[in-house]
Amino acid sequence: MWLQQTLFLSAKPRGFHLITDEVLAQIRELTSIRVGLLHLLLQHTSASLTLNENCDPSVRLDMERHFLRSVPDSASYEHDYEGGDDMPAHIKSSLLGASLTLPVKHGQPELGRWQGIWLGEHRIYGGSRKIIATLQGE
Amino acid sequence: MWLQQTLFLSAKPRGFHLITDEVLAQIRELTSIRVGLLHLLLQHTSASLTLNENCDPSVRLDMERHFLRSVPDSASYEHDYEGGDDMPAHIKSSLLGASLTLPVKHGQPELGRWQGIWLGEHRIYGGSRKIIATLQGE
Amino acid sequence: MWLQQTLFLSAKPRGFHLITDEVLAQIRELTSIRVGLLHLLLQHTSASLTLNENCDPSVRLDMERHFLRSVPDSASYEHDYEGGDDMPAHIKSSLLGASLTLPVKHGQPELGRWQGIWLGEHRIYGGSRKIIATLQGE
Repeated sequence: MWLQQTLFLSAKPRGFHLITDEVLAQIRELTSIRVGLLHLLLQHTSASLTLNENCDPSVRLDMERHFLRSVPDSASYEHDYEGGDDMPAHIKSSLLGASLTLPVKHGQPELGRWQGIWLGEHRIYGGSRKIIATLQGE
Repeated sequence: MWLQQTLFLSAKPRGFHLITDEVLAQIRELTSIRVGLLHLLLQHTSASLTLNENCDPSVRLDMERHFLRSVPDSASYEHDYEGGDDMPAHIKSSLLGASLTLPVKHGQPELGRWQGIWLGEHRIYGGSRKIIATLQGE
Repeated sequence: MWLQQTLFLSAKPRGFHLITDEVLAQIRELTSIRVGLLHLLLQHTSASLTLNENCDPSVRLDMERHFLRSVPDSASYEHDYEGGDDMPAHIKSSLLGASLTLPVKHGQPELGRWQGIWLGEHRIYGGSRKIIATLQGE
């Protein structure tokens, strides 16, 4: 069985956001899959999807501080049409990646106890974001 | 339906290269897939595959400058058989990743408007590169 | 055909480890797949899976030195419950990623000649690690 669907994420400030519930609530057919895979592609080049800690919000703040430091807005970039956060957002998107593949078991993603889906919003005003979800299984 | 195929990329200079067309032109069966997934594995440990901006070439130049700065050839590495670009190429390959999974819809990868497939060529003389493409769908 | 299985990795010291054999030995059904995909999800947020060089151990040592330098234990982190290696481990896990998808051909992962599966153990005492393997093919 194949299902493909467009998901929408509400606009979020720059930083990392736990979006497990926002994503899964939109995929109704997940519960009908006994074993399979869920693929998520974020259709943007200035944001990212990653798996990380689903509990303490300070992990997301420390992660953001790390990336602001290691990919600084203040470095000299040729591509700066849209401001100092433009090119760093492209770099962070490739460092973290824009897609995830998750195992599905008995209607749920089979994540580790502490794993959640994060959106890395790397633009100051990124706006709403789109994901193509492809679900496959039996 | 499963299809698996070896793709070849022409030799490219060190840096990031937009290879969407070079990749897709080699996968004839793509057009027969209504819904599915395309998986690409670059069979190398000194180059990478990533999704990023498909338009302004300066994004690729800025990306290359970022990686030359953050993973410098001049750092001290034990593994330096093949020159100063050898170990940095391995590091960049793991930072960016060597594979991509893309949703397929109506015979085409369902990428975002600004997304393209990039090869990160991290060796000065990397030569031709090989990708295993696995296409699955209905 | 779908198969899903939990794999266990023995506890390893902080650093990068070649685990191709340890992983594949646990997936008996691999040999029955003519063409397919093997997906591996590491169910942790302080370790990572990546593909890199399967031969010279100094590549793994240089990789570890790079990450100790670029994501230092000594940076100031808010999330430090479990020591200086705690937050850096979360950052490295997202930089490198916690999952891999590998093409399967004639009962084996179709990796490049120099590619192996690496575990990035980013905690000083990470303990045993769990992977969900999802195998699909025909």
